[in-house]
Amino acid sequence: MAAARTLRIGLIPGDGIGREVIPAGRRILESLPASLNLKFSFVDLEAGYETFQKTGTALPDKTVDILKNECDGALFGAVSSPSTKVAGYSSPIVALRKKLDLYANVRPVKTTAGNSNGKPIDLVIVRENTEDLYVKEERTIDTPNGKVAEAIKRISEHASFRISKIAGEIALSRQNIRDAAGTSTRNQPMVTITHKSNVLSQTDGLFRETARRALAAEKFSSVFVEEQIVDSMVYKLFRQPEFYDVIVAPNLYGDILSDGAAALVGSLGLVPSANVGDGFAIGEPCHGSAPDIEGKGISNPIATIRSVALMLEFLGEMNAAAKIYAAVDGNLDAAQFLTPDMGGKATTQQVLEDVLKRL
Amino acid sequence: MAAARTLRIGLIPGDGIGREVIPAGRRILESLPASLNLKFSFVDLEAGYETFQKTGTALPDKTVDILKNECDGALFGAVSSPSTKVAGYSSPIVALRKKLDLYANVRPVKTTAGNSNGKPIDLVIVRENTEDLYVKEERTIDTPNGKVAEAIKRISEHASFRISKIAGEIALSRQNIRDAAGTSTRNQPMVTITHKSNVLSQTDGLFRETARRALAAEKFSSVFVEEQIVDSMVYKLFRQPEFYDVIVAPNLYGDILSDGAAALVGSLGLVPSANVGDGFAIGEPCHGSAPDIEGKGISNPIATIRSVALMLEFLGEMNAAAKIYAAVDGNLDAAQFLTPDMGGKATTQQVLEDVLKRL
Ligand SMILES: CC(C)[C@H](C(=O)O)[C@@H](O)C(=O)O
Ligand SMILES: CC(C)[C@H](C(=O)O)[C@@H](O)C(=O)O
Repeated sequence: MAAARTLRIGLIPGDGIGREVIPAGRRILESLPASLNLKFSFVDLEAGYETFQKTGTALPDKTVDILKNECDGALFGAVSSPSTKVAGYSSPIVALRKKLDLYANVRPVKTTAGNSNGKPIDLVIVRENTEDLYVKEERTIDTPNGKVAEAIKRISEHASFRISKIAGEIALSRQNIRDAAGTSTRNQPMVTITHKSNVLSQTDGLFRETARRALAAEKFSSVFVEEQIVDSMVYKLFRQPEFYDVIVAPNLYGDILSDGAAALVGSLGLVPSANVGDGFAIGEPCHGSAPDIEGKGISNPIATIRSVALMLEFLGEMNAAAKIYAAVDGNLDAAQFLTPDMGGKATTQQVLEDVLKRL
Repeated sequence: MAAARTLRIGLIPGDGIGREVIPAGRRILESLPASLNLKFSFVDLEAGYETFQKTGTALPDKTVDILKNECDGALFGAVSSPSTKVAGYSSPIVALRKKLDLYANVRPVKTTAGNSNGKPIDLVIVRENTEDLYVKEERTIDTPNGKVAEAIKRISEHASFRISKIAGEIALSRQNIRDAAGTSTRNQPMVTITHKSNVLSQTDGLFRETARRALAAEKFSSVFVEEQIVDSMVYKLFRQPEFYDVIVAPNLYGDILSDGAAALVGSLGLVPSANVGDGFAIGEPCHGSAPDIEGKGISNPIATIRSVALMLEFLGEMNAAAKIYAAVDGNLDAAQFLTPDMGGKATTQQVLEDVLKRL
């Protein structure tokens, strides 16, 4: 038997319920069947608002260095945003995405047989993760008529091309998985390009044209490519979510669309994400730090558990990922152990144990 | 009896189904009961993509001049966007909003007794209408690594203040109407400020702070003020739309949120808007030019009819507006004449006649 592959995983719980769900993610990795021949080692890393209050920086250099030099992947929990402006504070996850060039934010949103409400949804939002308004280049000037602030929205051909390419690849790989399962009613993968080029003809126009060009490559010839203006995309997402497969979008639209899509499956507590770069991936639940339920032991670990699987997929461990997804689907369909956001009464721990049992 | 007030209304059908719904709006105005003591005169005006193709400009100076110098209000239909970039073309409605300083885009979204699905929704999105990314200041540079395009997002204290103030005023006036009707379960008006200041601390930070300050005025002391980050706002809008009353947002978020809210009430064909400045208002259905149904005679006139009412409200004609709203609610609740977007089989004309009968 081949030597086990050992993956070193950084654990960055951050703030709030991040601290409750990341340990659940770790437990999943530790409990994967031996037959997968995977080993994990872990390193605890700091980031977040509390780290900022303690050390003056929300993202210590040490965290970035260890991720870069020692780790194969990581799990990120959540960060609290201060409720008023705090000088010097800036979101560590946004910084991390840029520093590690994790250029794709992949957010699958899917119903299971048990929670589809009749409309099976199985889509993924592929969000550009390094530019757009997230470059955070802002300035404020004083005028006789009051303050005026400006921010730069930056869209590059380079970033638009690679995000569209990964969207195309994800579309192909999803179709492969569907074909293998033999259950899909979709006979062609689809990518929907989202933009607002009717107003932003240069920036979003560049995104749109570049996405069209990237997806016109020979290897994507089986992919149906269409587009939606972002406002109309939100409308259609709600009117006919079952229609969509892969949605590719600039950073901010992707942020908004993924929260919208999460609403469709009942809870943000179900939706995972992966921040993906070349050879590195950080799994991150889409929910935030949720101060309202912090410390009650009832935060939903599913988004994190699915983020673990998603991270593994991008590290090439498709079998391990499939096992985790199946265990989660089992938990959701049985609907015996669900946290309150899903209308259940179970604790984080009970949901975790139920998923572990199904692993 | 006092002399009738005469209002001169510009009619700008634009492209596509704009040409089918604006005549319906005109018929409504012409058919208002004499007891309201209102007279209307009309002037047909050009704008849109077809105008651009014919004349080289999508918004002729003549249209702007007549609106400015002769009209009290206007109705705008829709414009088609060219499906690829066309040099020199730029959206006439965006230009019109800026040229006439129509700084508020007011978009009420509401269910009627008959189409509430159990969740009565009655909210209004108050969208800033002159700045944000809609300033359309863009540039593109060539780099060794491909093209890079940038757009300016501009947020001013001045525009943020006046939009927040009008949001507060709308909240008060809605509460007055609810109190008079004696049917509301909401005992306090509410304004929700939408922003993304956790990422855009200067621009959206300025919007947020200025909105807080505007709404802290003594006259708004009865208004409950809260805020939501835009991604979370989309999520909550879908999870608990009945919770919201007035949502105030910068231009782009308002654009996206209003399409999202429209999805909640079943069809964009129901949702009106008014572009409002000091002493001037342009009613505009939220749907676009809908090339897929153009020419079939089945476009939903309700969004336009409600836009007529909304325009009248901002011209101070509350009674006329109330009559129109009631006639529309009557049509929707009876559900006898509904266009296909609402699951019915009626034509534009049949819906119009049914509303006229109820006027
Ligand atoms: C916390 C915030 C900076 C972040 C974002 O906007 O990217 C979050 O909303 C997300 O989607 O991961
Ligand atoms: C057509 C387009 C320019 C416009 C906008 O973005 O404002 C439309 O979406 C709207 O909401 O009125």
